[in-house]
Amino acid sequence: MQAGVKPRIGMIGTGAIGGFYGVMLARAGFDVHFLLRSEFAAVAEAGLRIDSAVHGALALDPVQAYRSAADMPPCDWLLVGAKTTSNADLAPAIAQAAADGAKVLLLQNGLDVEDDLRPLLPDSLHLLGGLCLICVHRVGPGVIAHQALGAVNVGYHSGPCADQTQRMAIVEEAATLFRSAGIEAQAMPGLQQARWQKLVWNVPYNGLSVLLGASTTPLMANEHSRELIQALMAEVVRGAQACGHHIAPGYAEYLFTMTEKMPDYWPSMYHDYSHKRALELDAIYGRPLAAAKAAGCELPKIEALYQALAFMDRCNR
Amino acid sequence: MQAGVKPRIGMIGTGAIGGFYGVMLARAGFDVHFLLRSEFAAVAEAGLRIDSAVHGALALDPVQAYRSAADMPPCDWLLVGAKTTSNADLAPAIAQAAADGAKVLLLQNGLDVEDDLRPLLPDSLHLLGGLCLICVHRVGPGVIAHQALGAVNVGYHSGPCADQTQRMAIVEEAATLFRSAGIEAQAMPGLQQARWQKLVWNVPYNGLSVLLGASTTPLMANEHSRELIQALMAEVVRGAQACGHHIAPGYAEYLFTMTEKMPDYWPSMYHDYSHKRALELDAIYGRPLAAAKAAGCELPKIEALYQALAFMDRCNR
Repeated sequence: MQAGVKPRIGMIGTGAIGGFYGVMLARAGFDVHFLLRSEFAAVAEAGLRIDSAVHGALALDPVQAYRSAADMPPCDWLLVGAKTTSNADLAPAIAQAAADGAKVLLLQNGLDVEDDLRPLLPDSLHLLGGLCLICVHRVGPGVIAHQALGAVNVGYHSGPCADQTQRMAIVEEAATLFRSAGIEAQAMPGLQQARWQKLVWNVPYNGLSVLLGASTTPLMANEHSRELIQALMAEVVRGAQACGHHIAPGYAEYLFTMTEKMPDYWPSMYHDYSHKRALELDAIYGRPLAAAKAAGCELPKIEALYQALAFMDRCNR
Repeated sequence: MQAGVKPRIGMIGTGAIGGFYGVMLARAGFDVHFLLRSEFAAVAEAGLRIDSAVHGALALDPVQAYRSAADMPPCDWLLVGAKTTSNADLAPAIAQAAADGAKVLLLQNGLDVEDDLRPLLPDSLHLLGGLCLICVHRVGPGVIAHQALGAVNVGYHSGPCADQTQRMAIVEEAATLFRSAGIEAQAMPGLQQARWQKLVWNVPYNGLSVLLGASTTPLMANEHSRELIQALMAEVVRGAQACGHHIAPGYAEYLFTMTEKMPDYWPSMYHDYSHKRALELDAIYGRPLAAAKAAGCELPKIEALYQALAFMDRCNR
């Protein structure tokens, strides 16, 4: 690809996820524009820095940073790295920064996270979801620590493409975008499938990090929490299957073993809890539980975890 | 009953439970002897005080207090108010303070709590269990706050009586003992039945007070924790039934409503956790789960709660 024909990318929400992928894409030669709120001044002045255990110390300075979507040039791709809880609020900014027929890719966990956003976007925009298997967290304004992993699984949600071949071409385009920035990426034939698959990790680790105030290393070192993690993973797999999505045999075991080998990690939900932000309970627990129940499948341990977290979330804010 | 023919009572473990029932019995004219460890000096000097929302301010001074069971006179009844986790350690003291053919009554929650103790006691001793529905907590050395309730359900575990009629006579004797001290008491035909019944309260409230760091009032004010409490209660009822113990229809709802009307209460497990003492997880969770599983009955939400608490307990000590 020539620099001149590379698509223009807008990052909506420049936290750990948005910052990491945005910097990686910008360093690969893409024209990346970052929408920021509270960290605008810090990033406009000092740029973005990533301390990566995989790629070394990366810096992007100057950053094409914006306080308002109205000032951004029309973008071909909009990558949303904000919390699912703010999707509806961000819809006007996304629509404003979008070029004609742009593709919007939500780099977010959870089920059905596109559903609140879709009716608020023009029909001409493609909406996709991307599941990031990555250990990354924000250290300070514009400073991100990347501990491990980074792969993105992309799937098509909705938009002007009805044809599956055309949809997959757009999904492949997204995967190529990441790959050309040195990031592993996979085009998924079904977005729901990809979202359920990612829940196998998020359901146990995100919730238990908050419930037990524990990061992955202690959670993987105790026989009781290990059993609970495995039981929660098994329920996610059952829920996915009840909803018609096949999870490969051994996939839960693969994630469990991968987490054992990972550096000690605090999932994003723990950071949200400790900063008294809203937890993404609906996307990661409420909707999967409802979908499974609608398919006649009870997930009692996930439900108990959800109820406990919902109590904690209410008391925390 | 004449004072002279009243049985002599030994209290083994004078915390909130032992202190409350011991003082009530002593004030009713029983000859009560208290075995103490860390609080011996304070109680020998200043006596026992109970600030009761039901009975007013009660004091017992002087107290027949002992540092060692070897100094106690032979007792007809031994009431054990210690934690289930220390039963095995207390066996020699119980045997030493027991008169010939004495009755040992464990005022403790949980399933099968007599099993560790029984082989360590002489065969000549009767072993009974008592389930206390009471809101009581230790305020300081020898000072106890009694917030509400107080009823005791007593059942026979094991001992020289094989005949059910004779067993029930001993159980009735225990109930009469409490009643003559102004305490509601009921003779239960089956101890396991009584223990399962009490678990309907202990399983949700003890565990959630630790897991969520919350007392009964906030737990009863949030729709998510209410649903979780009701689901946990329903699982206890299912477990009891699987093990052949009938819980009266509406009993869980009765306890739920009773808890709503109670003053705000921190269950004993919360105090244990905050003082970094061992939690009674085996008696209240491990054994009921194992009993239900052996009867072919899974209790997934209780199991998840147990696993989370076991992790916390390990990290806490």
